[in-house]
Amino acid sequence: MHTAAMTTHPFDQALALEHSDLQAGLFTGATSADYWNMVGPFGGTTAALALQAVLRHPDLLGEPIAITVNYAAAIVQGPFEIQATPVKTNRSTQHWTLEIRQPDAEGRPQLNTTATVVTAVRRETWGATDLPMPAVPAPEAVERMTIGPKAVAWVGQYEMRPVSGSIPTQWDGRGDHSETRLWLRDARPRALDFASLTAMSDIFYPRVWLRRATVVPAGTVSITTYFHCTAAQLAEVGTGHLLGRATGQQFAQGFFDQSAQLWSQAGRLLATSNQIVYYKE
Amino acid sequence: MHTAAMTTHPFDQALALEHSDLQAGLFTGATSADYWNMVGPFGGTTAALALQAVLRHPDLLGEPIAITVNYAAAIVQGPFEIQATPVKTNRSTQHWTLEIRQPDAEGRPQLNTTATVVTAVRRETWGATDLPMPAVPAPEAVERMTIGPKAVAWVGQYEMRPVSGSIPTQWDGRGDHSETRLWLRDARPRALDFASLTAMSDIFYPRVWLRRATVVPAGTVSITTYFHCTAAQLAEVGTGHLLGRATGQQFAQGFFDQSAQLWSQAGRLLATSNQIVYYKE
Repeated sequence: MHTAAMTTHPFDQALALEHSDLQAGLFTGATSADYWNMVGPFGGTTAALALQAVLRHPDLLGEPIAITVNYAAAIVQGPFEIQATPVKTNRSTQHWTLEIRQPDAEGRPQLNTTATVVTAVRRETWGATDLPMPAVPAPEAVERMTIGPKAVAWVGQYEMRPVSGSIPTQWDGRGDHSETRLWLRDARPRALDFASLTAMSDIFYPRVWLRRATVVPAGTVSITTYFHCTAAQLAEVGTGHLLGRATGQQFAQGFFDQSAQLWSQAGRLLATSNQIVYYKE
Repeated sequence: MHTAAMTTHPFDQALALEHSDLQAGLFTGATSADYWNMVGPFGGTTAALALQAVLRHPDLLGEPIAITVNYAAAIVQGPFEIQATPVKTNRSTQHWTLEIRQPDAEGRPQLNTTATVVTAVRRETWGATDLPMPAVPAPEAVERMTIGPKAVAWVGQYEMRPVSGSIPTQWDGRGDHSETRLWLRDARPRALDFASLTAMSDIFYPRVWLRRATVVPAGTVSITTYFHCTAAQLAEVGTGHLLGRATGQQFAQGFFDQSAQLWSQAGRLLATSNQIVYYKE
């Protein structure tokens, strides 16, 4: 048991789901201490779990194209269930709705997360990118971010090498932009797949902290990630670095949006992501 | 009757919904010929209808923050029903799931669209924009797009003044970018509201047509729009022009994503939107 636990990657442990024999599309799992954030799980893990339930579903058609996750209520430490439903299956696309629930004090399941996923069978077509990877130094030339003793658990699960826009060390209210560029990958090597790419699309700390050089309460309300690659293309990336870029767009009356991109080191845009984030003050 | 129809704006006719007395959150309506696209309704109208059902729901909390609409199956001319469910209501945020259905040949409701909406009570906070409005000539200085006899119906419902990236007139395969900037508003004046802003966030023709200067089959699979304004701020815009900007990001294996922004003429970023679009060849 101990040996098996040691050899299973913490992300695979966090993604572990049991499928109900009694109800199609009902999965059970438990939150991961390794990916804990301040008062709940790292939102990227929650999104990855929603996707994973779709990928594990016996009726799956094709590969992920889009996922939207709405963080409706707090998730507490412990067991959860995910209901994944293929609500519409077409010839080459499939539409999914998902709910994540946890038992309340009386054991009744309470919804905390909703999601929708689109999967599709991809075909070879003309292609192009209008969002080329920024020119940045190679990962080896960029210093790895050190994880302090006060860091939350999930941050330690990633190797992050910030090129620019790293988390402020002076919280002096003098921020003047909201863009971060960093190299990233799993701290313990793990071959990239759709679940880990989903989690990584939420790796950027709240843009409002950078923009204001001020820590304020903030939390993602809804995230949408689009996938621009096949499983075979992710396998080619393997354990290599991704370049991540995130920038804030509009900050107004308690909510801001941030836009993010993830490129392979070879320069392929693998995913684009947007989220809207609650903030205070 | 005739007079009433003449004085009701076509967008308000398209948005008309009856609320079931028997089931909370169940609305009925019918597709609009005025906003017809090639083989179904303009997707912006469908998204606006989903939002409208939330806005009409008696349990609504706050104002719209985010909407995601998944176009799961074709919508045909005729009646539809929308089920809007507030799945989680917190102190200041509310999470919604929606389904749009139409009867099949046997009269059984068949799902064609899913959506999620987040609403919230906004508060005054610090604010900023990191996505300023591009410098462009005033609307009066830009020629209005003429609507040809072959144009689809919905296009005629909008006044569009393309600053750059207008729909190609030479389909010669020589496209080299995917960005459009245009002034837009309802062709028949109508004060801006969340429903019309939602529809306008889907006003941009498929980026793949511009990028390739080639018409290929294309259709939105999923759209997400974030709102950065209050109803009062929309009322201030009234019947004024919006500046819209859209650009493609990644085109690969049958799907591309496009990113869009809508500013008031005064330069306020009202909405940001992203969609993933199916294309052929």
